[in-house]
Amino acid sequence: MKAILTKYNLFSAFRGLTPEKWGQGATILAGKMIGLMLVLAAMITIPGLLGTKAHAAAEVYTAHETSMMNSIDTVWTLVAAFLVFAMQAGFVMLEVGFARKRETVNVLMECIFDTCLCGILFYAVGYAFMFSTGNGFIGYHWFFLQGTPDLYPGTGVPVIAHWIFQYAFADTCSTIVSGAMIGRTGFRGDILYSIGITGFIYPIIGHWAWGPDGWLATMGTAGHFFTSLGQGFRDFAGSTVVHTIGGMASLAGAIVLGPRIGRIFARDGGGMPPGHNLPMAAVGGFILWFGWYGFNPGSTLSAMDIIGIGRVATNTTLAACGGGFTAMVAALWWGSTRGKFDLAFTVNGFLAGLVAITCPCYWVSPLGAILIGGVAGFVVFAGVKVLEYMRIDDPIGAVPVHGFCGIWGTLSLGLFATGEFGITGPYGADNSAANLVKGLFYGGDASILKAQALGTFTIAIAVFAITWAMMKVIMALPHPWKLRVEAHGETGPGGLDMFDHGAEAYVLDEEDVDLTGLFEKKTTKVIA
Amino acid sequence: MKAILTKYNLFSAFRGLTPEKWGQGATILAGKMIGLMLVLAAMITIPGLLGTKAHAAAEVYTAHETSMMNSIDTVWTLVAAFLVFAMQAGFVMLEVGFARKRETVNVLMECIFDTCLCGILFYAVGYAFMFSTGNGFIGYHWFFLQGTPDLYPGTGVPVIAHWIFQYAFADTCSTIVSGAMIGRTGFRGDILYSIGITGFIYPIIGHWAWGPDGWLATMGTAGHFFTSLGQGFRDFAGSTVVHTIGGMASLAGAIVLGPRIGRIFARDGGGMPPGHNLPMAAVGGFILWFGWYGFNPGSTLSAMDIIGIGRVATNTTLAACGGGFTAMVAALWWGSTRGKFDLAFTVNGFLAGLVAITCPCYWVSPLGAILIGGVAGFVVFAGVKVLEYMRIDDPIGAVPVHGFCGIWGTLSLGLFATGEFGITGPYGADNSAANLVKGLFYGGDASILKAQALGTFTIAIAVFAITWAMMKVIMALPHPWKLRVEAHGETGPGGLDMFDHGAEAYVLDEEDVDLTGLFEKKTTKVIA
Amino acid sequence: MKAILTKYNLFSAFRGLTPEKWGQGATILAGKMIGLMLVLAAMITIPGLLGTKAHAAAEVYTAHETSMMNSIDTVWTLVAAFLVFAMQAGFVMLEVGFARKRETVNVLMECIFDTCLCGILFYAVGYAFMFSTGNGFIGYHWFFLQGTPDLYPGTGVPVIAHWIFQYAFADTCSTIVSGAMIGRTGFRGDILYSIGITGFIYPIIGHWAWGPDGWLATMGTAGHFFTSLGQGFRDFAGSTVVHTIGGMASLAGAIVLGPRIGRIFARDGGGMPPGHNLPMAAVGGFILWFGWYGFNPGSTLSAMDIIGIGRVATNTTLAACGGGFTAMVAALWWGSTRGKFDLAFTVNGFLAGLVAITCPCYWVSPLGAILIGGVAGFVVFAGVKVLEYMRIDDPIGAVPVHGFCGIWGTLSLGLFATGEFGITGPYGADNSAANLVKGLFYGGDASILKAQALGTFTIAIAVFAITWAMMKVIMALPHPWKLRVEAHGETGPGGLDMFDHGAEAYVLDEEDVDLTGLFEKKTTKVIA
Repeated sequence: MKAILTKYNLFSAFRGLTPEKWGQGATILAGKMIGLMLVLAAMITIPGLLGTKAHAAAEVYTAHETSMMNSIDTVWTLVAAFLVFAMQAGFVMLEVGFARKRETVNVLMECIFDTCLCGILFYAVGYAFMFSTGNGFIGYHWFFLQGTPDLYPGTGVPVIAHWIFQYAFADTCSTIVSGAMIGRTGFRGDILYSIGITGFIYPIIGHWAWGPDGWLATMGTAGHFFTSLGQGFRDFAGSTVVHTIGGMASLAGAIVLGPRIGRIFARDGGGMPPGHNLPMAAVGGFILWFGWYGFNPGSTLSAMDIIGIGRVATNTTLAACGGGFTAMVAALWWGSTRGKFDLAFTVNGFLAGLVAITCPCYWVSPLGAILIGGVAGFVVFAGVKVLEYMRIDDPIGAVPVHGFCGIWGTLSLGLFATGEFGITGPYGADNSAANLVKGLFYGGDASILKAQALGTFTIAIAVFAITWAMMKVIMALPHPWKLRVEAHGETGPGGLDMFDHGAEAYVLDEEDVDLTGLFEKKTTKVIA
Repeated sequence: MKAILTKYNLFSAFRGLTPEKWGQGATILAGKMIGLMLVLAAMITIPGLLGTKAHAAAEVYTAHETSMMNSIDTVWTLVAAFLVFAMQAGFVMLEVGFARKRETVNVLMECIFDTCLCGILFYAVGYAFMFSTGNGFIGYHWFFLQGTPDLYPGTGVPVIAHWIFQYAFADTCSTIVSGAMIGRTGFRGDILYSIGITGFIYPIIGHWAWGPDGWLATMGTAGHFFTSLGQGFRDFAGSTVVHTIGGMASLAGAIVLGPRIGRIFARDGGGMPPGHNLPMAAVGGFILWFGWYGFNPGSTLSAMDIIGIGRVATNTTLAACGGGFTAMVAALWWGSTRGKFDLAFTVNGFLAGLVAITCPCYWVSPLGAILIGGVAGFVVFAGVKVLEYMRIDDPIGAVPVHGFCGIWGTLSLGLFATGEFGITGPYGADNSAANLVKGLFYGGDASILKAQALGTFTIAIAVFAITWAMMKVIMALPHPWKLRVEAHGETGPGGLDMFDHGAEAYVLDEEDVDLTGLFEKKTTKVIA
Repeated sequence: MKAILTKYNLFSAFRGLTPEKWGQGATILAGKMIGLMLVLAAMITIPGLLGTKAHAAAEVYTAHETSMMNSIDTVWTLVAAFLVFAMQAGFVMLEVGFARKRETVNVLMECIFDTCLCGILFYAVGYAFMFSTGNGFIGYHWFFLQGTPDLYPGTGVPVIAHWIFQYAFADTCSTIVSGAMIGRTGFRGDILYSIGITGFIYPIIGHWAWGPDGWLATMGTAGHFFTSLGQGFRDFAGSTVVHTIGGMASLAGAIVLGPRIGRIFARDGGGMPPGHNLPMAAVGGFILWFGWYGFNPGSTLSAMDIIGIGRVATNTTLAACGGGFTAMVAALWWGSTRGKFDLAFTVNGFLAGLVAITCPCYWVSPLGAILIGGVAGFVVFAGVKVLEYMRIDDPIGAVPVHGFCGIWGTLSLGLFATGEFGITGPYGADNSAANLVKGLFYGGDASILKAQALGTFTIAIAVFAITWAMMKVIMALPHPWKLRVEAHGETGPGGLDMFDHGAEAYVLDEEDVDLTGLFEKKTTKVIA
């Protein structure tokens, strides 16, 4: 609710802003937020140890039992990692399908390159920044996976298996960023900003929430930031850590880049160019949904908590269903193709539901999941309209889906947590009273909502500000390293695909290809 | 064998029927069958408890052991559920690929919408109707997943994990139904019938076979229906429960709708319009095959039965191989493109094999699986010919693949069950003598074949009759809620995609899109 | 390094060879190699028992524990098998995407048919030849899966589950072979050679390395071949056994077939025709990468070795990243589209990295994996150039990716094995000193490199020679069984797709289809 209201207020506030004014405002905002970050940094003095994840394991297990349970947990985590990796196929299909034909090969290359780059950087520094101990802001051990223990602390999963699970998450974030920047980013510029996002911004800011001693993770505990709140920031599978980081970085990129040449916005009598291959986009959506069953249920890092993983899987499903439903209805009632059942909004709607449930999936009920997803469907509809109004060109809706719904989902925990569920652990759940998470709608106090708001807005603003500054720097470089491609790279024959990659996405009319002597005569079509 | 003969007899019987006469006959048949259902209903008096699934667990396990085995079973079931969900991507690709371009977005939207709707309905009522106790015809507990135990009775899997596995099955059935109705169903009509299929018809009729006290599940046991038969109805993973229900509902819809405008049948000098994107169809077929490894092996709900899950996976593979092979040969020898290797029949052939093995996969040998699949390949070829002759427009072959081969596969258990295998259970298989299932070809008596025939034909007829009546009602509604879209919705520019969804599937010629000022000059193709 | 150097020497040696001369040379080479094989065969006298896979399990487990661990291992193996099967979807997308439109349906049909054929043959004879005991050259038990034990010896996995895992491997090899033969192979010729590859060549030669008593598996142990070497041939997941066999068979086929009509090579002023559907190719590449997480980590056949499976998964990832990166750079600096970021090379680059790491993935470090993959990216770039220079038409790069990088990866173990890891087993790893594998770069001696070279080159040459002879025989058959399709089958309207399959891949212009009365007027495109 809050997220939507905020967004509509923003909508009014920005009414009438030209892109230039918005740019100025963003500069000021970014400056302020960097300052705020520094203040916050100063408030953190003593980095803590692993906080909220400790598990009160009263049971005594034999060595054989521990070994088997670790195997069960590791199988679960690795299979989940593979499913998360499959999301790359889904993302690339979604992005390609919603893009114009002339930027298709570019989308493919960016996603593939980012996936390769992310692996190497996350091995070298990313995993260390994010998951090793250090201080509240950054981890500084385990570079190049050196000096790691066998098992990731507090889990039954080897570090080397935890790495690939977290790599797949980092890669997801990295791919999201490319979404709102489709069609006008030079490939060398993509290389530069991807190094920043994948190697530094995502893992370092991710450390705040998921690092063993991150300041948001340890928040509210004795000796740490905001002890009086009594609550840490919770993000079960990454509504904020993965999706909002990706979405906000993408927004910063889209604003710095400006829209694609020839892109006319709704208020100027145009609209989003239609996706060039909707079957590919829709199938990509389904593959993303499939991969989300690794993303969320796998985030227990444990399959001994069988009710927990079942609940997460079911909640994930129902939130997607809710989001698809409401986004379809919103577009049917209020969309530019009023009265029609819009495919693009429906796909983005179920993705919005999936993004939103990613944070609260462990702690809410199935009904809560439907409602959280349902609201997300409206958020994504409104978000697309807001961006269109603000003349920000986001070809696939990356910002509303991942950025805005990530924030909504993170906040929703403070409303919908049922108070029945606590923390998961390698050998089962711990639902003892001290660990239970209860939101406002279930009779809890506002402390969880406050912790969630503090975490998600801080991260959203920090990511936007830092990425915006980085994108500005890359935008100031000379060609070909400049963030935005040369104008003739966008408008020339074959578009960005031919300019940066020397290839077109499809060759369906083979007579255009020089295959001397191949063709007897023009092909004719017959019924099979 | 029986299924084929029956089908050929039907073929003769219907020779010369006009669509109108067939419609009349169907009306009469439907009426009779509703009556038959009522008689059958009256015969069932005392709903029983969980029947054939009881497991004679003589072993004593420690609490830790039980906990670990439940985890192993739950991981297995959840991973299987995810694979079954992946079948949605496969189905949508298959349907899109075999459809005409003008109905592509519609197919995508129907499958996505059905998936969302199914989640919400299966949470609210479907799971309760199907899997809770009640009487032989319907379950009436656990609505909105309230009042459920932790574990689904007789398994080591939590209800909340069992739900998502069964949701994925329900969604599969729901998607099948759309198959034979492609290209002329109004979207609001789709919404209405989908509520009926997903919320009521599938789960209630499914309860008969898979509910803890379903009359077909408890059939043959003391105090239940047809005690003297001594056999219950067996459908391991749903040849009948999922596929025949889906296929027969689809048939009813296709008959009520009539063919697409402009569809000329083979006997009138035409033929099925060619699929508009065969790569997508074929890849969809492979993804379906992949997802079937969740569908069948996951239906043990147990991974402690390691030989059982291995056998099911291997049998599933070999039946697909057999079906693909024979359907290819049938089309090569007898198809309209005689002498050529037909892709569409080959894909539908391996799917036919998969559908057929779904019921008997646990109880037959690898050789039996090849033969069952091989026969299914012929069934699907003959079935397509029969529908074409009867002037029923089934654009993707949903009725022959799912409807007819589901029946064949269910019957095949009565022939091919080897007599070596009994029932599976959460902590291992129980192959004690009393549980063994032996078919006619292995020296068993005809009782299993009788039980299978009774179950599959009753369900097929009941589904057809009820769905037919429902479709007739929706067909009688005024536009836009009428089942069939307005004629200009089919024939207008952009077809059904533009009419109901305001979008075309592909935008490959970008100069048709209004991107003022974007293009310097016409693009030309070059060699990469 | 060695592999690249060898290749460049070959490059010089073959400079100026006409296709005819190369054909003659290949004949002589093939003859010599068949002779060499016979000599090698004579050297093997006593077939041994399971060699390198024995596991020193000092631990004592209860029956319940053993049962649970076997379940964990079987779940792991089966899920891995399903992922490997998913690679079929990836392969077919990759092949289709890189092919020309006119040979698309043919590619689809070949992959589907091969998958069906492979199932039946691998059930009947293939698994027996490969995995049963016999002598060093061939297994001769377990035909039609008769007489098998419950568990595959030395593992916790049932034979019936091991079968499907190995079937998916065999099917992968089978599909690779079709890669370099795209576009000019008659379908009946495909049937014939596929029977040879799938039923005989792959499983029999695979037996040498992976059979319980294969001469390469038992090599270096007392009483077996080359006892003084003291090392057996190691191929953890099949760089040589699956990929080099597939790649070398494909090379033999491509040479016997000759290039597609109208194919002009780079040195003659032409180049590879562009892939007709790059989104499909790139997504196929991602799905292959996803499936590789079954291929490599699943090859432990055990999930009790949790650090082992984590390490394999992470190494697999990093090698792919390295290969994608270096191939992109190679094409950027030295490719025909110099200065552009080439999609096709980047995709083939990460696949090259995956192929290369398949053999050494268990024994190397993450840094080693990056380097092995990185070298593979260069190997694939150079390999494509060499084939183009030699006027061998390999439409998708199957030979460089699978053939050459399979050899490189196999050799790389001898360089990069860290000496920290030994053998895996059903209940955990055995890293006792006697089992450790240490390569040259980590202070080991050259014995491992020698064993690897002996194994991979022997297999590569044997496969090439035998397949070449088989292809020559099929090439000599009369039409339609001849290996190469009639010329008008390639050049006629609709190309090979219409000639052999009676269908075109896409029907995007519906007015070409005879749907009398359907269309009101020409469709026009609008903005959604």
